[in-house]
Amino acid sequence: MTEVSIETVKEFFVDLQERIVGTFEELDSVGKFLEEAYDSPNGGFAQPRVLTNGDLFEKAAVQFSYSVGDRLPSAATERHPNLANCPFRATAISVIVHPRNPHVPTTHLNLRMFLVEAQEPTWFFGGGFDLTPYIPFEEDTRFWHEQARAVCGSDARYVEMKENCDQYFYLPHRGETRGVGGIFFDDFNADGFNDCFKFVKAVGETFLRAYTTIVKRRAHLKWTSEEEEWMLIRRGRYAEFNLAIDRGTKYGMQSGRRIESVLASLPPRVIWLYQHELLVSEKLANLTSKLQPGIDWLGIVDNSVDKS
Amino acid sequence: MTEVSIETVKEFFVDLQERIVGTFEELDSVGKFLEEAYDSPNGGFAQPRVLTNGDLFEKAAVQFSYSVGDRLPSAATERHPNLANCPFRATAISVIVHPRNPHVPTTHLNLRMFLVEAQEPTWFFGGGFDLTPYIPFEEDTRFWHEQARAVCGSDARYVEMKENCDQYFYLPHRGETRGVGGIFFDDFNADGFNDCFKFVKAVGETFLRAYTTIVKRRAHLKWTSEEEEWMLIRRGRYAEFNLAIDRGTKYGMQSGRRIESVLASLPPRVIWLYQHELLVSEKLANLTSKLQPGIDWLGIVDNSVDKS
Repeated sequence: MTEVSIETVKEFFVDLQERIVGTFEELDSVGKFLEEAYDSPNGGFAQPRVLTNGDLFEKAAVQFSYSVGDRLPSAATERHPNLANCPFRATAISVIVHPRNPHVPTTHLNLRMFLVEAQEPTWFFGGGFDLTPYIPFEEDTRFWHEQARAVCGSDARYVEMKENCDQYFYLPHRGETRGVGGIFFDDFNADGFNDCFKFVKAVGETFLRAYTTIVKRRAHLKWTSEEEEWMLIRRGRYAEFNLAIDRGTKYGMQSGRRIESVLASLPPRVIWLYQHELLVSEKLANLTSKLQPGIDWLGIVDNSVDKS
Repeated sequence: MTEVSIETVKEFFVDLQERIVGTFEELDSVGKFLEEAYDSPNGGFAQPRVLTNGDLFEKAAVQFSYSVGDRLPSAATERHPNLANCPFRATAISVIVHPRNPHVPTTHLNLRMFLVEAQEPTWFFGGGFDLTPYIPFEEDTRFWHEQARAVCGSDARYVEMKENCDQYFYLPHRGETRGVGGIFFDDFNADGFNDCFKFVKAVGETFLRAYTTIVKRRAHLKWTSEEEEWMLIRRGRYAEFNLAIDRGTKYGMQSGRRIESVLASLPPRVIWLYQHELLVSEKLANLTSKLQPGIDWLGIVDNSVDKS
């Protein structure tokens, strides 16, 4: 058994950030990520890396943070309310990408570790990745979920984490999921530190590989102004989710953290049209039939039913 | 003493809606408001009137509603929590305007009456108006507050309602008010139905007259692309307020009301730039120094201090 080490996780996140930034700059060829670093008086530090106005990416935010706090926010853990208000250390990486080409999906990754100095020191990981297409390719969605299934290592874990994702990224006022999903986990520590960290590392690597594959497949496709308008409308849903629903954004807005970092996830350009459904073609509007929780992209549930 | 009549209030709101729509179409000369009507099975009805892509107004929503419900939502009253869950009737008019010209401010009006069938039937009014300039003219802001002071009839009422407005339309994560304010009141019934309704009518009339005056002053001014970009950035603040903070929008999103009506208030085009403060000129950025609660636009507080 190896010792629990938030330092090791931190190092991995910093390295992963560096590699994501490098890969995205290579994919974009024009856009460059700003380099910034912010130290907190208590030993925390943040490294937001944000690219704006690239050729491929209209905005991409790849942010690393390490924080030291006196009182764990209750939003940080659902299963361990007794840990709220204990001193803690946390480290996280988050990625949000808003491409210019509506054939290239938006994506999001978040990985985080909390270490809580309670009577019995406690740690847990959280995070996941999800995909938000504008013009959906079923091939990409299945590929994305195959990668998610592979990193999970078992149908059971994939099905559970995929369901978490569908539930979390849901806009009740629209009756839609934010995108076609992926995996999402929280309070994750059941398998011991080594195995959990191994999984978290694999999630980060899988994300980068899978998203890069999809970008390379679609980045060369031309788009129409109608398709671009559709993307800008759909980005409105993204802003609605982040501002009105997302726990992380809410916590960031309420906690007085650097607001530019908290809201770096918001889309660069958005439109809200009144009754847009009258204005966009059926083909594009059909996207929303795919944005429902519980779609069995890999036929896993069906299979198990057949076999039972 | 006249009888309390929600029918009379409803008629006034319908008539006011008609006049606002007529005035705005005259001001715009190109844009026309859609005519729509939605009936609820329980006797409620809604008349959203929305204009999009006008010459002067990029989007304007002037909405009337009458609703009948079994259980008053707790969000409807702060001072009378005992009335929550009682059967009620309510009627409201709301106006939100997003002009195309950054010299013309965005504005918002809301007027509403609730009639609650509790053991002792209870009624109250709520509402107010506020102004959100992009390129601020101190002359307009003072004029707006003079009109607000005039309709209030006393310094005391104006100061109280102006403070309510500053407090309600505040974005803590930005350290800014949404605009330069106005007046805001809730659970308003202390003066008896006749006087309260008279005040509410005067607020509606004052709003229409004051906003029209400001539009006519500024609509002919030319603007630069930098000024337009600034307006689109500031509209992001509007979306942040409506989606993350506004109680009415939150209630509408959670209650399953027609989402197109609830979110008709969102700006038509928005941009979120990372670190926009580095990109816009000081002159424009200086707006935010005026977006603070407690600015005494009419010198009322100073005067009363001098006299004391």
